[in-house]
Amino acid sequence: MALSDFDLVLFGGGGDLSMRKLIPALYARHRAGDLPPSAQIVCVGRHPWSDAEFVEELNRNAKPNIGEKVFQQEAWNAFCASVRYVSLDATNADSYDPLVDLLRNDAGLTRVFYLAVSPTLFASICHNLHRRGLATEHSRVVLEKPLGRDLASAKQINKEVSQVFKESQIFRIDHYLGKEAVQNLLALRFGNVLFEPLWRREWISDVQITIAEELGVGNRMGYYETSGALRDMLQNHLLQLLCITAMEPPLSVGADAVRDEKLKVLHSLKPFTPTTLSRNVVRGQYRAGHVEGKPVPAYRQEKGADPDSNTETFVAVRAEIDTWRWAGVPFYLRTGKRMADQLAEIVVRFKPIPHSIFAQSTNSFVPNCLVIRLQPDDGLQLNLMAKTPGDGMRLKPVELELDFAETFKTPRMDAYERLLLDVLRGHLTLFMRADELEAAWEWVEPILRYWEQEGNEPIPYTSGSWGPAAASALIGRDGLQWREEVLPE
Amino acid sequence: MALSDFDLVLFGGGGDLSMRKLIPALYARHRAGDLPPSAQIVCVGRHPWSDAEFVEELNRNAKPNIGEKVFQQEAWNAFCASVRYVSLDATNADSYDPLVDLLRNDAGLTRVFYLAVSPTLFASICHNLHRRGLATEHSRVVLEKPLGRDLASAKQINKEVSQVFKESQIFRIDHYLGKEAVQNLLALRFGNVLFEPLWRREWISDVQITIAEELGVGNRMGYYETSGALRDMLQNHLLQLLCITAMEPPLSVGADAVRDEKLKVLHSLKPFTPTTLSRNVVRGQYRAGHVEGKPVPAYRQEKGADPDSNTETFVAVRAEIDTWRWAGVPFYLRTGKRMADQLAEIVVRFKPIPHSIFAQSTNSFVPNCLVIRLQPDDGLQLNLMAKTPGDGMRLKPVELELDFAETFKTPRMDAYERLLLDVLRGHLTLFMRADELEAAWEWVEPILRYWEQEGNEPIPYTSGSWGPAAASALIGRDGLQWREEVLPE
Repeated sequence: MALSDFDLVLFGGGGDLSMRKLIPALYARHRAGDLPPSAQIVCVGRHPWSDAEFVEELNRNAKPNIGEKVFQQEAWNAFCASVRYVSLDATNADSYDPLVDLLRNDAGLTRVFYLAVSPTLFASICHNLHRRGLATEHSRVVLEKPLGRDLASAKQINKEVSQVFKESQIFRIDHYLGKEAVQNLLALRFGNVLFEPLWRREWISDVQITIAEELGVGNRMGYYETSGALRDMLQNHLLQLLCITAMEPPLSVGADAVRDEKLKVLHSLKPFTPTTLSRNVVRGQYRAGHVEGKPVPAYRQEKGADPDSNTETFVAVRAEIDTWRWAGVPFYLRTGKRMADQLAEIVVRFKPIPHSIFAQSTNSFVPNCLVIRLQPDDGLQLNLMAKTPGDGMRLKPVELELDFAETFKTPRMDAYERLLLDVLRGHLTLFMRADELEAAWEWVEPILRYWEQEGNEPIPYTSGSWGPAAASALIGRDGLQWREEVLPE
Repeated sequence: MALSDFDLVLFGGGGDLSMRKLIPALYARHRAGDLPPSAQIVCVGRHPWSDAEFVEELNRNAKPNIGEKVFQQEAWNAFCASVRYVSLDATNADSYDPLVDLLRNDAGLTRVFYLAVSPTLFASICHNLHRRGLATEHSRVVLEKPLGRDLASAKQINKEVSQVFKESQIFRIDHYLGKEAVQNLLALRFGNVLFEPLWRREWISDVQITIAEELGVGNRMGYYETSGALRDMLQNHLLQLLCITAMEPPLSVGADAVRDEKLKVLHSLKPFTPTTLSRNVVRGQYRAGHVEGKPVPAYRQEKGADPDSNTETFVAVRAEIDTWRWAGVPFYLRTGKRMADQLAEIVVRFKPIPHSIFAQSTNSFVPNCLVIRLQPDDGLQLNLMAKTPGDGMRLKPVELELDFAETFKTPRMDAYERLLLDVLRGHLTLFMRADELEAAWEWVEPILRYWEQEGNEPIPYTSGSWGPAAASALIGRDGLQWREEVLPE
């Protein structure tokens, strides 16, 4: 389906996200011929760059993030030539004049405001867009995380933005939902009859959702100190993945049908009490260690760090979903920086076979497992037991792999490319609704409060490990193990 | 587990099966070091060959059937040197003297009599072995098909053999049960929690079991005219595959546990009546056509054929299993010569998804399908729907392949190798019990009688096709199709 013409305004257009992800994604779609020739991309920032100077910026900071296969000099030049740059003070409506001049006044034209800026600016930008008459009926606004730092601030953001835009115009982005593997999880669950009957407490032992980074805090210390792993990763990405994994079959893949079901999951998460919190949440902070063979400093020794910082760089949570489908099935969520590996995956572990008819004891059967791999590559893996060829009847674990790139021979699309196209088409399915956002914060809030009240200090873990031993104990109490603990080396 | 010492006597040792399969299988196990050095292989036949002359025979007729990877001249020489040949008249006990001389009298020694001869000789050989005191407590007898040509003759064979050997000494061989893929079906169903909950009428639409040969009757016209596809393939191989597919979980993989469950399947097959027969059985005979691009003659024009022959070279049957698990699920069995392809497979087809949440209509989803491939290679294939990468949510069929050879890097073992080892170890699981054999004949008998009484002439089909159109109509009546009819070219 071809895109209709649009004006896209990128607030924070000279910033990190823009240069790393958004501009490369827009270029890739330009190169693929998806963008209408008359479409206009306007980058907005504080720096007083000219268009020509901004192209220098694009060459310096965005170009290196474009894949070799996609990059082509002429296409890139043409793309850069079509990008406008506008310098303004987001908090000052009067400074919006150049933007007002640039944006076209066609009634039917799609107008997108992408706010790749600090959430503290969301309210003023929305109000200023309104004041300057830029927020039309055909406008959409895209909000980047962090969408609040607790329930109250998230509600505040929702309230301010909703004074200017209707819910159907608001695109709260969570780029994990743009990943192929996540959408394939939907396809797998609801496009096949094979999985849904097993997708429940009767057959599933536990679900493990992991986002592990090898990187440390890098140059984001200023932001990270006010956030931590719970706010930065768990409240949004991990909970969104949990929702997609656990939700009931939606009526359709329409935006509200899917978001209604995700909301139901968030509402059915068993709320924490101070007693259950101490048992079910592990908070960690990396100390010095080695990642990929290289020595790395402790979080408290990173550039600009508070040497007494109690900010967590790791969090593991044991969640429960109080529904007929999931009662009693633990969902383990964890994320951390400076971990042993760079990966994001959803692991659905099935129960052991109830009885072995073979000479092997039940213990020697590795329970079936479905792995939805989001990072570093997209893929599916199904772990089965099969007979080893030859004499006798000895069963061994085998892996059925579905590599999307290899299977379809189609170039994969980056999550941001996919989500930008969805914004331009007005498809809201892969974006969070206000009530979802608030429900996620509502569930997370007691953890934040507990840590504040108890002065809960994070447990140190060695960089390059899988986090504090307490995370293994958390799952071990259920008689289970994290996937990497059962994998053969 | 090492084999204990044995004497193996191969009646029909100079015959076709022996040269094509049994000698190459024994050599392969010799080469692999599985056979004890003192083990003795005695080939028995009518031809008055010396040992040296028999080695000539082996070089001429058996050696070409040994795989390149396994053949090694010295090992082959050593193997041939250890093979004895005995010429005797199977029906004359007095002629057994040289065999009596050769066989060792150790009490604990395993002694195997492999009857690769016409079933008309089974009774006399068994009785003569008994008369000459050769059938000891540690003896085993292996019976090759055809095990009767109807219920009465099968019962007669069972009766005669049982006068000499106990049921636990009788190995009725069906080499399809020795195939890796069939045993892997057991592993798959009962070594994983993923399949068994779906393995029932609620989720399975139909099961298709096909053994298709490109070959014609070849030089077996004499035998084939007295048999036909129903007796030659359906009564034994196809029904055995059906049993393994449909049986309830056995208590163990022990011989009687598995055979009890297979027997229950045979007993639960809905019996045919003259009315249901005419609708549910298709009988065909090949006429001239092309196979792999080469013209081939009609069955009635083959060398030695009766030009008015009504022998069927194709049969398709729609079977039903009257149990809670399978009621209403059609099992389609078919086999034929001069077919479009050379293959043997079990296709378990799952029901369509009950509802599409996607923009695509339910019709555009190819229902899931598990293919257990026995021939030409061993493998498993799972057909799923997955999302095509990129924009939107379009689902397409994909195939997850499990190639045993590739997965395990272990050389595969021929079905006869596997089954010979099982005989030498006394493992009866993969062999048919007397009551199974009779139950299979009992179900097949009304088809034979119906054809006899109605003078039912087979429907001609073109060589190189998938059999008579009536076979498509048979499955089409249920609103279904044979797998090759839905496969993309």
